[in-house]
Amino acid sequence: MSQYSPRLSRLIDALRRLPGVGPKSAQRMAFHLLDRDREAAGQLGTALGEALAGIGRCPNCRMFKEDEACRYCSDNRTQSGQLCVVEGPADLVAIEQGTAYRGRYFVLMGRLSPLDGIGPDELGLPRLAELLDEGAMQEMIIATNPTVEGEATAYYLAEMAKARGLRVTRIAQGVPMGGELEYVDGSTLTHALSGRRAV
Amino acid sequence: MSQYSPRLSRLIDALRRLPGVGPKSAQRMAFHLLDRDREAAGQLGTALGEALAGIGRCPNCRMFKEDEACRYCSDNRTQSGQLCVVEGPADLVAIEQGTAYRGRYFVLMGRLSPLDGIGPDELGLPRLAELLDEGAMQEMIIATNPTVEGEATAYYLAEMAKARGLRVTRIAQGVPMGGELEYVDGSTLTHALSGRRAV
Ligand SMILES: [Zn+2]
Ligand SMILES: [Zn+2]
Repeated sequence: MSQYSPRLSRLIDALRRLPGVGPKSAQRMAFHLLDRDREAAGQLGTALGEALAGIGRCPNCRMFKEDEACRYCSDNRTQSGQLCVVEGPADLVAIEQGTAYRGRYFVLMGRLSPLDGIGPDELGLPRLAELLDEGAMQEMIIATNPTVEGEATAYYLAEMAKARGLRVTRIAQGVPMGGELEYVDGSTLTHALSGRRAV
Repeated sequence: MSQYSPRLSRLIDALRRLPGVGPKSAQRMAFHLLDRDREAAGQLGTALGEALAGIGRCPNCRMFKEDEACRYCSDNRTQSGQLCVVEGPADLVAIEQGTAYRGRYFVLMGRLSPLDGIGPDELGLPRLAELLDEGAMQEMIIATNPTVEGEATAYYLAEMAKARGLRVTRIAQGVPMGGELEYVDGSTLTHALSGRRAV
């Protein structure tokens, strides 16, 4: 006999699918929601439904988007002539929150990883090529993570941009090798951004 | 301007209300759900709705319950004459999963903590007194956590049971002082349970 009733089992199983949540944490979360914070459970259920129904992907920068116009692809951002390429949405948010950069973005939603079957197509690079071919961008700022795969991705991106005559920069490695961009504080990110170097 | 659109903000806020989830983790979870595992997001939303609608509390043992009959208050458990008092649902599950105990339970849903306004009424002790007065129980096994508040609660429970002529035992302190019962492995719990002593 399972130690949990069916609905409780399903709730614990669903919580376990959250990143970083193991069986004990999932159980703890379920008990907390049912015992002490049913309001939070309702709020989360509603928020999940609304998010699934209303949050899509911008066809230009690939960032999450729920309004008609993407806030990261506005005309004044395009006029900056700068395009910052990041691996994921959290990296974009880290740069927006921590630095004064207000140019365009391109979110790869991953990094090149041939062994995992993640190649240029999976990262939307054909779309990135189209955007570069439109001619409005003068500089590509490559802000992939300073990991082996992030560096390989940066190399590939640099070749794409150079082939189209763009200036290519890479954010300075103020972040430790092997680190994750999204956990870096704003001042370090600002430093890394301003210290970017031509590739 | 907030860095997140309204629905994304609401999702991150809702995830932050889960125990042990800070702002960075909440953001990471939201992005993961939206980017890589929308199926998990749907599953969690559904599970939350079902749990809120269908999981209640047993009026006898105070454990979560979704069926007509509480699995922890069955007649054969009552016939054991043993009632194990625990602080929370996770403690009950830890004892059920880790030991051979199959008597009745009473879940306090907390511990005595006068400074936080948690007294006997908040822990359902009037209901516990009624259950003891029914006369079917011969032994109260006190399995509150080995913390200062858990010990104070144990003392209070022991007085209640002794006043009604029950044998009172406390699980052996095989668990480190200040530890949390729900994180203890089954063999340690078994040992602690079999080594219980009269209070
Ligand atoms: Zn966009
Ligand atoms: Zn019950």
